[in-house]
Amino acid sequence: MSRDKEATRNKILDAALDVFANKGYHDTKLDEIANESATSKGSIYFHFPNKERLFLSLVDQFSDLLEKQTRKAIESEPEGIGRVKIALTTVLETFARYRRPAKVLLVQAMGLGQPFEQKRLEVNERFARMIAEYLEEAIEAGEIPIEDIDVEFTSHAWIGAIYHLVIRWVYTGEPSSEKIVHELVPMLLRTVGHQTEPSDSKPADSA
Amino acid sequence: MSRDKEATRNKILDAALDVFANKGYHDTKLDEIANESATSKGSIYFHFPNKERLFLSLVDQFSDLLEKQTRKAIESEPEGIGRVKIALTTVLETFARYRRPAKVLLVQAMGLGQPFEQKRLEVNERFARMIAEYLEEAIEAGEIPIEDIDVEFTSHAWIGAIYHLVIRWVYTGEPSSEKIVHELVPMLLRTVGHQTEPSDSKPADSA
Repeated sequence: MSRDKEATRNKILDAALDVFANKGYHDTKLDEIANESATSKGSIYFHFPNKERLFLSLVDQFSDLLEKQTRKAIESEPEGIGRVKIALTTVLETFARYRRPAKVLLVQAMGLGQPFEQKRLEVNERFARMIAEYLEEAIEAGEIPIEDIDVEFTSHAWIGAIYHLVIRWVYTGEPSSEKIVHELVPMLLRTVGHQTEPSDSKPADSA
Repeated sequence: MSRDKEATRNKILDAALDVFANKGYHDTKLDEIANESATSKGSIYFHFPNKERLFLSLVDQFSDLLEKQTRKAIESEPEGIGRVKIALTTVLETFARYRRPAKVLLVQAMGLGQPFEQKRLEVNERFARMIAEYLEEAIEAGEIPIEDIDVEFTSHAWIGAIYHLVIRWVYTGEPSSEKIVHELVPMLLRTVGHQTEPSDSKPADSA
């Protein structure tokens, strides 16, 4: 894709994110996205065959970002429970930093019918596999105290807890995203037998 | 409400559950519900001002059932971690027994916009409060090893894990609902420091 075309595509995706996050899928009109992105309906159709594909592209874009951030964050950490912890923290912090994409991915993509459900299942499986991979490594490294944990099951349970608290935060602002990271990561690690202190993180006043 | 009217109302709700679970909210027509329930559109409108209210009544009906089953199940158990365990087990078993209402409540009520989100938040807060209540009792009874747990936060994290695994089961049938109950309850109890054995449950052949 040429630079210009890619720039236009990104402008459209940015504007679409705004409009979808504000109005929801059904009430969003491509005209508004064209307006908001200072492009045209023609340009939108050039890049995306229809509203559905545009929406699904946003979901893909955000899940790529989430995975990339997480893979990058664990890079310098040796295999083991440390990676699991960093992966969970990064996923939560990324949701916190990107509240609108979080809303589109976790809330608005639901209940829209087949192709959307398909995509959601695909994204969920992708994250579950990533977390399961780090859990497997931690087991190999002898760092998981609970024997015979089902890594697939565990990672789905974790994802459920993460999604639910992020969705609640998107709607209510409560509890703060800092608190979610601070409390949830040690809580999830306890499910595999890790008793980390919640006071693990930096002290309030940084010296 | 007279007996007859109530019977009709229930017939409509039963049929609506079928049709919504099969077609989703948007593609459901009141005509089909009238057909399926052997009533008429007139009767439907007598009981429910519109499709939205009918759908929301189903959500209420199922959350009432979930709460009633749970309250009944814990009744004979003394306050403490035992109640928490029974409550979690009952919620999971009720979802397992009622797969279609689970689908309507957990999947199809999402992404439908304001009044539906409102209802979902309301249902979530209601269950979170119920679980938080049993957790508070267990703390009072000195049966929660982890100090200073945030019962509201914990119960929402639990609900998230439960919903996610139930939704996944509704879509994929995996893992079996028995496995979900068997693995998830001890896993969630570990988040508050309880190391119960997963082999807690009855043996395969009941003597």
